[in-house]
Amino acid sequence: MRVSLLLLVFLVQSCVLSKGAAAEPQRPNFVVIFCDDLGYGDLACFGHPTIATPNLDRMAAEGMKFTQFYAAAPVCTPSRAALMTGRLPLRNGMCSNKRRVLFPDSKGGIPAEEITIAEALQANGYATACVGKWHLGHLPQYLPTSNGFDFYFGIPYSNDMDRVNDAPKGRAPFWDPKTEYWNVPLMRNSKIIERPADQTTITRRYTEEATKFIRDNKDSPFFLYLPHSMPHVPLFRSPEFEGKSRRGLFGDVIEEVDWSVGQVLDTLRQLELDDNTLVFFTSDNGPWLIFDEQGGSAGLLRDGKGSTWEGGMREPTLAWWPGQVKPGSISRDVGSTMDIFATLHALAGVDLPTDRVLDSHDLTPVLRGAGASSREALFYYRGYQLMAVRKGPWKMHLMTQDAYGPASREAKKHGPPLLFNLEHDPGEQTDIAAKHSDVVESLQAKVSMHLGALVSAESQLESR
Amino acid sequence: MRVSLLLLVFLVQSCVLSKGAAAEPQRPNFVVIFCDDLGYGDLACFGHPTIATPNLDRMAAEGMKFTQFYAAAPVCTPSRAALMTGRLPLRNGMCSNKRRVLFPDSKGGIPAEEITIAEALQANGYATACVGKWHLGHLPQYLPTSNGFDFYFGIPYSNDMDRVNDAPKGRAPFWDPKTEYWNVPLMRNSKIIERPADQTTITRRYTEEATKFIRDNKDSPFFLYLPHSMPHVPLFRSPEFEGKSRRGLFGDVIEEVDWSVGQVLDTLRQLELDDNTLVFFTSDNGPWLIFDEQGGSAGLLRDGKGSTWEGGMREPTLAWWPGQVKPGSISRDVGSTMDIFATLHALAGVDLPTDRVLDSHDLTPVLRGAGASSREALFYYRGYQLMAVRKGPWKMHLMTQDAYGPASREAKKHGPPLLFNLEHDPGEQTDIAAKHSDVVESLQAKVSMHLGALVSAESQLESR
Repeated sequence: MRVSLLLLVFLVQSCVLSKGAAAEPQRPNFVVIFCDDLGYGDLACFGHPTIATPNLDRMAAEGMKFTQFYAAAPVCTPSRAALMTGRLPLRNGMCSNKRRVLFPDSKGGIPAEEITIAEALQANGYATACVGKWHLGHLPQYLPTSNGFDFYFGIPYSNDMDRVNDAPKGRAPFWDPKTEYWNVPLMRNSKIIERPADQTTITRRYTEEATKFIRDNKDSPFFLYLPHSMPHVPLFRSPEFEGKSRRGLFGDVIEEVDWSVGQVLDTLRQLELDDNTLVFFTSDNGPWLIFDEQGGSAGLLRDGKGSTWEGGMREPTLAWWPGQVKPGSISRDVGSTMDIFATLHALAGVDLPTDRVLDSHDLTPVLRGAGASSREALFYYRGYQLMAVRKGPWKMHLMTQDAYGPASREAKKHGPPLLFNLEHDPGEQTDIAAKHSDVVESLQAKVSMHLGALVSAESQLESR
Repeated sequence: MRVSLLLLVFLVQSCVLSKGAAAEPQRPNFVVIFCDDLGYGDLACFGHPTIATPNLDRMAAEGMKFTQFYAAAPVCTPSRAALMTGRLPLRNGMCSNKRRVLFPDSKGGIPAEEITIAEALQANGYATACVGKWHLGHLPQYLPTSNGFDFYFGIPYSNDMDRVNDAPKGRAPFWDPKTEYWNVPLMRNSKIIERPADQTTITRRYTEEATKFIRDNKDSPFFLYLPHSMPHVPLFRSPEFEGKSRRGLFGDVIEEVDWSVGQVLDTLRQLELDDNTLVFFTSDNGPWLIFDEQGGSAGLLRDGKGSTWEGGMREPTLAWWPGQVKPGSISRDVGSTMDIFATLHALAGVDLPTDRVLDSHDLTPVLRGAGASSREALFYYRGYQLMAVRKGPWKMHLMTQDAYGPASREAKKHGPPLLFNLEHDPGEQTDIAAKHSDVVESLQAKVSMHLGALVSAESQLESR
């Protein structure tokens, strides 16, 4: 009897203990670091010869590099709207054929009926913060704090807007930028706390706010969205990064962003949150090539920001989650910033909305090395205009419009369309449509199906 | 007394032992893996999105990546002559303005009075082998075995030469190459052992010969020069690499070269020679862009093979020497394949020849992270024509000639010269000569000094 009793006590204890250990595991934290106008070729780990990015290189070595990962649009506002909602910009009206992005005089912003990833996570117990450039509307109802973020610190639109009247005209001020040329506000939650925002220390201050948010919320699951203002022109960096890079001012700026990434990852390591936090690093669109040395490089890809050639939309992308994502792995699957929406839903155990069309595919199997994403096709839009489609290695251009060089900026309609095998020819140099009419046909069918089912919303970017 | 005697015995023993331990350390082995027409952007670790190069990526992670390392010429024969001798091709006549390289009907080759790195090492007790494409003369006196190599296995000139009469004309045979279209000989030492060389298995056979040489010579210091025939068109790979790469035939070829590098490094590891062997990986010139998808990519660099734009001469370069070269390090210093000559001399303890001008700078301090190379300038030649000069970040073009696209292949003389800051603008997009007339002047002075002291040898490439 005595032995049996002891055994019983032991068994009960074991049950209690094991129940305790198996209790609801802490849901993972998420950090999305989002650059502005970063080119595919601007990081050392993506082949830049003179920009030093040791922290991003380490993030790649400890995590996964995506080599075929896309922003959802080749310019800022639509790209960010798509990231936030997992939907093509034209489904929520966050694009336009007339005004490509929101400006300081814009009256519009992200529609209230859209569900942002922040709203979904906030409603499910996540602490949420947006630290950086928003650009989805600066009137009160459009700010981050009205769209699922508990906390906001940053600038509401681009750092080159609100130019003061007595600043030099044209592109002149960008070659030797001074923070007082642009009367951009810096906000905390819904209040302007500084104007003009002192951009010389903005990357450092974003980093301080971001790491403070992590420390303050270490015990609850959190979602930190960290959209850097840089390397969008005008370029600024903190004094300690002045002249640091061999790549000049642009390189200094990237090296400060790299430092910032290091600070975020180190904070996670110090708090022992690294094995429970997924960090993405990517950008909103390609490099702004008209700014010469102040613009970035799309590496081996063609063209840049504003264009639906690869250089405008393919981004250097990293995912990091020690213990979950295999160190030094490379995913060559097609991914999109829109996929972050479904991925974070899946990992947080939150159901996806079923009352709307999503363009988001869960990347969890890719991150875990367990399989491919369910994404079948990728559509390249410029405003409301479908320009190109990708399926597997094939990209078909219905229209092209170069962003680089004023001589070639006219839109060209291609009949027959251009066809490239992006996996053989990432630089889009050799049109092989004539040799592959079957592929062209199948892509045209895909386009018809997509356009046939498409419901576009009215533009939110045109009212002022 | 007894204690003193014991002490004496002990001291004598210690001396003998310590003398034994300090005996002449084994001199390091050297392996130089040299590709043919590999572009700056063709390896995953240099940013290619769809070519998988896990062995080269590992070599980079365990060693040093050079991001500003140059071949000595934008075409084959001169580039190889410079690698072998540490001298600009025009100093030994291994270049020409008429016949850019040696052809099967050529009567010339590397002059007997030249000292090859193989001759220098062979004379100092090194076992030496050349396995691969030679292209410095195919008459007996010019073969590797007449120029310092104990052993030779490979093809004496390019794999696209000796086209048979009934093969398709023009570029047609390169799109779907068959080994019998080219009557290229395969040689062992000075004998032809196979003709046409079966190119479909040539990378594998080079690898087998190379690793056998390493195993056979594990106890003596050795120098293995492994100049792959690939990825020069026509492209061939072994059956097990058919269709392996997402990048098509070109990718299959690079992935077999990558496999080969893995075999070489694994052999060194297995024999425990890794901490006493320096391995370089680089190429002879940039990608042959006129071959569309069958040509490589210069990444973010401009143009390719044949041109003195960066894409023609800057190469993806790695150095590996566990214990000596810091893992995961990146050198952004300017280096040249010509520097391998002085570097191997220094490491083998062999004095450099003093009776001739060398263009070679010892990279030992760079490899050890102990300092910069002594190289001050880099000259870009096309045949005997000085086209451009680089000093620090500055590159000045006196002349340019595009290699890509027949429309633009005319040579252009630039007065005033073009100036680029290569560290800010590696793609050579923004000419800034007008803003930096002082730099232009200083580079012009450098050019005058260089040309004033230059003694050119008569071309060895024109006789047939």
